[in-house]
Amino acid sequence: MRNLKYAVIGSGAIGGFYGGKLANAGHDVHFLFHKDYEHAAKNGLCVDSVNGNFNILPINAYRSTTNMPPCDVILVCLKTTQNHILPDLLQPIIKAGTCIIMIQNGLGMESDLSTYFPDNGIVGAMAFICSNKIGPGHINHLHYGALTIANFRNTSSGQMEEVAHDFISAGVPVRIADSLLTARWRKLVWNIPYNGLSVVLHSQTDKLNAQPNTRQLLTDLMSEVIDAANACGANIPVSFASEMIKSTDSMKPYSPSMLLDYERQQQMEIQYMYSNPIRSAAEYGFIMKKTEVLEQQLRYINEEKILK
Amino acid sequence: MRNLKYAVIGSGAIGGFYGGKLANAGHDVHFLFHKDYEHAAKNGLCVDSVNGNFNILPINAYRSTTNMPPCDVILVCLKTTQNHILPDLLQPIIKAGTCIIMIQNGLGMESDLSTYFPDNGIVGAMAFICSNKIGPGHINHLHYGALTIANFRNTSSGQMEEVAHDFISAGVPVRIADSLLTARWRKLVWNIPYNGLSVVLHSQTDKLNAQPNTRQLLTDLMSEVIDAANACGANIPVSFASEMIKSTDSMKPYSPSMLLDYERQQQMEIQYMYSNPIRSAAEYGFIMKKTEVLEQQLRYINEEKILK
Repeated sequence: MRNLKYAVIGSGAIGGFYGGKLANAGHDVHFLFHKDYEHAAKNGLCVDSVNGNFNILPINAYRSTTNMPPCDVILVCLKTTQNHILPDLLQPIIKAGTCIIMIQNGLGMESDLSTYFPDNGIVGAMAFICSNKIGPGHINHLHYGALTIANFRNTSSGQMEEVAHDFISAGVPVRIADSLLTARWRKLVWNIPYNGLSVVLHSQTDKLNAQPNTRQLLTDLMSEVIDAANACGANIPVSFASEMIKSTDSMKPYSPSMLLDYERQQQMEIQYMYSNPIRSAAEYGFIMKKTEVLEQQLRYINEEKILK
Repeated sequence: MRNLKYAVIGSGAIGGFYGGKLANAGHDVHFLFHKDYEHAAKNGLCVDSVNGNFNILPINAYRSTTNMPPCDVILVCLKTTQNHILPDLLQPIIKAGTCIIMIQNGLGMESDLSTYFPDNGIVGAMAFICSNKIGPGHINHLHYGALTIANFRNTSSGQMEEVAHDFISAGVPVRIADSLLTARWRKLVWNIPYNGLSVVLHSQTDKLNAQPNTRQLLTDLMSEVIDAANACGANIPVSFASEMIKSTDSMKPYSPSMLLDYERQQQMEIQYMYSNPIRSAAEYGFIMKKTEVLEQQLRYINEEKILK
């Protein structure tokens, strides 16, 4: 078996953790940094993890993809608010056979990117993880860490298994799902209620779960997302909503990524996490009325409190 | 024509203005104060109004209804969060033939009170006014001021016209509506979107109207309220939503009463303004999905930020 060469595009809470795990296991990983380049090139990538801390030093760190080698696997770990720069950003490191794995939240990212790289394999990845960037090149991994991956286009099961094997042997549980559609929507069942309400109500997951009215609202929103998903052809049981609520009960108080974006005055991932699912469901005749309220409130907050 | 004796229960932004207008025109008005009693008894009731300032001094001020005379007309101007004290509060000033006029926002107040005073006339009143209490016994009237009144039970058209005549001759435009149901729901078409969103998004009316996403959300919520109203037997045209939006465009930046309650850390009127309409519509088979989101968010905010 050949050794795969990995590129990590966006070495933050997600890319830093997953790329770091591969590099820490001896894989050939090339990290793209933005603001943290200087610090990371000098001090490496530092991951404080519930499963054991580690530091990647020396590190293959880059400030531009034009200096990076073409890679076999590209892990896209940017926020989806940056996806408009992906076509230019990935061009220098793409070759025939390169597989692009999009470790992002939302719906429709793979479809948007595939028009630019129609011959390459594209895989969607759902990260079930609580991790944050707490400083330059410094990641704090709090809980979980598994990946679910699913083929969007042009990826053979052999390729998927090779990548899964690399992750698993590096200590990252990976599940290969049959349906990217179902897997993306399953992730949205958590993301849509918790991300949006945490921002609108300035609250972490534990408080939203504890108060009866928001617990009911979380459940109502989850049920709506499940109904929308199934209208679009996904297959998610209704009981998945209460599973997600209970699983969140067992988490430590957690700030969803959108709440962190808001607190850092960064753009929120509204397009891929809210607008695309709403539009997609509407195309199948299902109107996500409750989710629309949240989307419009978030767009207001994004414009009034972040962009201004 | 006899001279009616009026009681004002709750001499704040609403009671202070409407009771003040009657007293200023020479009517026999008796004001119940709570915290402001000392100040008002000494300094009177001061109304700064766009239509001309006035001061009621001397004033018939009381700190308890037990000292007040039985009245012909009782203007109930408390926040609906206080309605549980009304049965005891009104008992001393009720007599045969007393008519209770509830100048409040929401749905179901008349029905709740009527079980305690089954033989008295009960009237619902909708105040179309921008006014605030800005100090003890000190009201600031910014805009509008008309009342719509409608019989709930046991009030003859002669009684209604007598009260309307008193108000009109005191400078308060009054319209007598045929249907209290329709009139109450028409008021909710404005109140439900603007009150709730102003609190959840910490914004006055002008900003909510100006931003395209909240303008759409306001419109969507209004449409839902109109659909709910009509499902309950009211008669409100769909076009009323855009009328309300446009009419709010022409207002100065305004803090809805619920935003003021929130800023003053006072309980918000969620039960009568949100929960009762939602429950009433559900009884007619209409689910107010978007309004439910707002209700649950407000109940969370009320518990987490006000009651704690």
